[in-house]
Amino acid sequence: MISGKNHIGNKLSSSGSTTFNTFNPQLNIENDNIFTEATTEEINAAVTLATKAFKVFRNTSGKQKANFLNTIADEILALDDVLIKMFCSESGLPEERAKGERGRTIGQLRAFADLVQEGSWVEAMIDTAQPNRKPISKPDLRRMMVPLGPVVVFGASNFPLAYSTAGGDTAAALAAGCPVIVKSHPMHAGTGELVSAAIINAAERTGMPNGVFSNLNSIGYNVGIQLVKHSEIKAVGFTGSIVGGRALYDLASRREEPIPVFAEMGSINPVIILPKALVERGETLAKTLAGSITLGTGQFCTNPGLILGMKGGDLSNFIKGLSEEIIRVEPTCMLHPNIIGAYERNKVNALAQSELTVVADYKNDVKTNYARQTIITVEGKTFLENPNLHQEVFGPFSMVVQCENKSQLETIISNLEGQLTGTLIAGNNEAEKFSRLIGALQNRVGRMIFNGVPTGVEVCPAMVHGGPYPASSDSRFTAVGIHSIKRWVRPFSYQNWPDNLLPVELKNENPLGISRVIDGVQTVKSIQLEN
Amino acid sequence: MISGKNHIGNKLSSSGSTTFNTFNPQLNIENDNIFTEATTEEINAAVTLATKAFKVFRNTSGKQKANFLNTIADEILALDDVLIKMFCSESGLPEERAKGERGRTIGQLRAFADLVQEGSWVEAMIDTAQPNRKPISKPDLRRMMVPLGPVVVFGASNFPLAYSTAGGDTAAALAAGCPVIVKSHPMHAGTGELVSAAIINAAERTGMPNGVFSNLNSIGYNVGIQLVKHSEIKAVGFTGSIVGGRALYDLASRREEPIPVFAEMGSINPVIILPKALVERGETLAKTLAGSITLGTGQFCTNPGLILGMKGGDLSNFIKGLSEEIIRVEPTCMLHPNIIGAYERNKVNALAQSELTVVADYKNDVKTNYARQTIITVEGKTFLENPNLHQEVFGPFSMVVQCENKSQLETIISNLEGQLTGTLIAGNNEAEKFSRLIGALQNRVGRMIFNGVPTGVEVCPAMVHGGPYPASSDSRFTAVGIHSIKRWVRPFSYQNWPDNLLPVELKNENPLGISRVIDGVQTVKSIQLEN
Repeated sequence: MISGKNHIGNKLSSSGSTTFNTFNPQLNIENDNIFTEATTEEINAAVTLATKAFKVFRNTSGKQKANFLNTIADEILALDDVLIKMFCSESGLPEERAKGERGRTIGQLRAFADLVQEGSWVEAMIDTAQPNRKPISKPDLRRMMVPLGPVVVFGASNFPLAYSTAGGDTAAALAAGCPVIVKSHPMHAGTGELVSAAIINAAERTGMPNGVFSNLNSIGYNVGIQLVKHSEIKAVGFTGSIVGGRALYDLASRREEPIPVFAEMGSINPVIILPKALVERGETLAKTLAGSITLGTGQFCTNPGLILGMKGGDLSNFIKGLSEEIIRVEPTCMLHPNIIGAYERNKVNALAQSELTVVADYKNDVKTNYARQTIITVEGKTFLENPNLHQEVFGPFSMVVQCENKSQLETIISNLEGQLTGTLIAGNNEAEKFSRLIGALQNRVGRMIFNGVPTGVEVCPAMVHGGPYPASSDSRFTAVGIHSIKRWVRPFSYQNWPDNLLPVELKNENPLGISRVIDGVQTVKSIQLEN
Repeated sequence: MISGKNHIGNKLSSSGSTTFNTFNPQLNIENDNIFTEATTEEINAAVTLATKAFKVFRNTSGKQKANFLNTIADEILALDDVLIKMFCSESGLPEERAKGERGRTIGQLRAFADLVQEGSWVEAMIDTAQPNRKPISKPDLRRMMVPLGPVVVFGASNFPLAYSTAGGDTAAALAAGCPVIVKSHPMHAGTGELVSAAIINAAERTGMPNGVFSNLNSIGYNVGIQLVKHSEIKAVGFTGSIVGGRALYDLASRREEPIPVFAEMGSINPVIILPKALVERGETLAKTLAGSITLGTGQFCTNPGLILGMKGGDLSNFIKGLSEEIIRVEPTCMLHPNIIGAYERNKVNALAQSELTVVADYKNDVKTNYARQTIITVEGKTFLENPNLHQEVFGPFSMVVQCENKSQLETIISNLEGQLTGTLIAGNNEAEKFSRLIGALQNRVGRMIFNGVPTGVEVCPAMVHGGPYPASSDSRFTAVGIHSIKRWVRPFSYQNWPDNLLPVELKNENPLGISRVIDGVQTVKSIQLEN
């Protein structure tokens, strides 16, 4: 069933000699399928096809694109257990998670299908002519969003479905009208090939141009570098580490023609627990946070790696409670030996810092590739003065910072790097007294959660998944939800363009019935011509 | 009246020793006022003040910001003839242009005031909670745009008012809630100081925090470099040359925390004249284009530097007509000896290319700093093969490319660098036959004009002023019109946030009465709570 080849448009190809296998971390063995890394020729062929496909695809109607996206969803569902088993064998994640992530993937594809089928997402704006305006006449101007061109999507290790081959980045880019070349993640190349085949089938079934999608295998950096440097690639989407995201950003910004890179990178997701909340429900909070820290073996980008509170007996009790609760959690498997290797290394680095106390450290025997959870605590001053402690330890690890006072807490928050999320846990009528702290937090994050946990990223229009650097490379966009389509489009304006040559979205009669802003008024009405 | 000092917030300061004068190109003499370049200490002081001001300014209401912007407009108008005279003495531009540009500046400030006073620009989106959703409950999520932080604006040499101190970039950034530090353009530092004082007065009159605006003089690169590299600066706006814009982009992208740079750079603004249009109205077109090429001494970023047509008698006649018409235009003054120096140098470089014919070259004596207009023509093949011919010659210079056929014309368009505009001039029912050509043009530009000229950039919501690189450094934004505010903001999301702590834009009762998307429906209604 798995060929191990690259999809260069609708053709399978494997002319290279570099091969690799994926790995089953639960069984601690290599999987059987052998994947062949894409060659320079295959990379160039995929880009050439994508460039050609763009000429057709960018004019493809919303209805046709919706059909394509919905058919991808159907094809993915049709893979059924084959996909679920492959997902689990390449990630060590349980079947329930595989099914949940498939549901999320399908949901995203269908949400973008709905968006482009409806059509108003292009933000059509029309300022009609004023031929008699003084001192000079005003032309007719009509604006809408148009796609950037072929984009490259890097699959995420921690979301083999929802943020990989047919994940959020791909769905958003295809919806926008951009052909997509996926740099498949080597840890789940089999899942990638299955989904890629689903996309190719859907493209053929719905009459999309060949090259609208390609999937390239790669085990090292070479394929990604060549793709990002290719002059016909017009944007890049990435989910992963700060080092990886920054490297791609640097490559892209040093091109002769720089291109936008949207990289969703690391985050330690500060959780602030205010004093009264500790008094009112310290025990429950310990339990809830222990769950959030260990959820998915701590392999979510919104994992709470930093908990902050005011020093004192209540915080000490909470730390004790959190430590007890987290030790009770049964360790689970990480995605890959490389991931657990990095987790152990980063943890050793963190623990090697001075003036910290390990308050929980799972000591029992665990299966190979299973991660032991750890909690440390430090004083506010120590944290402030040691930037090494601000680095993400990807996995079930968290740090409780004991602040001297409100002002130190504020200083710590203001000095944090950009974060995806910030959480405020407050007692009854307590948050009102911390407006400066909330202001400081708001300025460092993309989303603030009240009395909850940062894990769990709802896919909906009001979601923002992104934030000040390095949470993401461009905080002006979100990576999750329908607005993530804006990463792949640019505004375009037609001046005095004849109605018969305008795209349907901008024609006088508004044949799609979309919502447009006409001379400042949002309306679905057509434009009545004065004849 | 002119102090020659820097505005560090509301204080005038000139602790440095580097001084310079502006220049009157009409009289070919230095102006009297002496300006002092900002020192490192002054730069840092301005950024520190801006950072502090941001904490207050980002929470300033739309109504208060509108009052600030309108008061800036009032203060600028109150400068009256002093400003107009200063503008003319530092630019060589006529009084009529000064007044027109002032009108545009005032119009922009008031348009942004209206935008933020009304308030819907924050794109409020609310997805209400579904506590009983299965398998997991859905949280309440509320999203709106928030400002990035202190931004730096580089004044443009060719728009001393409309794209400088209180120009489009500054107005948009202040409207967004970002404090602004202007790196004043050395060619019009006096105009800059007058406008800066108007902004400072307005800030004080309307109770804005000190540091919301600063204005720094500079004669070299040093001030700009320090500003862009400063860790507290969060975005950059620039209008100018490709070399300058790219240098700032490179600086910004190599920071530890990269920041967005919106640079509106060069463009040769291709004008395609289809065969039938030449037959139907070749003579009129020659006259119109001669006017557009020489408008404002060719010192507009939308100046038509490239005209393309199909080789033959009609095109030859047009070239003859254009040459005759343009020679009749009375030469006018350029902005500065440096600008005319660059014009002459770039023209010499262009004329030194092989296989081109000079068809018009103004030979009569002209006053010092007045520019002689020039038209050259080349074969399509020559143009395609020589990228030197694709470079902008900033001034009253244009090139007519004689294409072999439709396919060569398409190839030329497809191979152009990104452009601000593309113009299509077609005869009756002619454009319909050139859909591939139009598609190619659309992919290389930010705005397409039908049967018109690229000069004249209407300030309205549907305007796009920007385009694929190097027309701008990020084609996903426009530099002109109210949507340019999006360069300076990021989406932000509140999850399960208590109503009393939410910003007014997101509160249940919608006290501002703005248009919001609630559970997918655009509405001005409030949210009814189920009690």
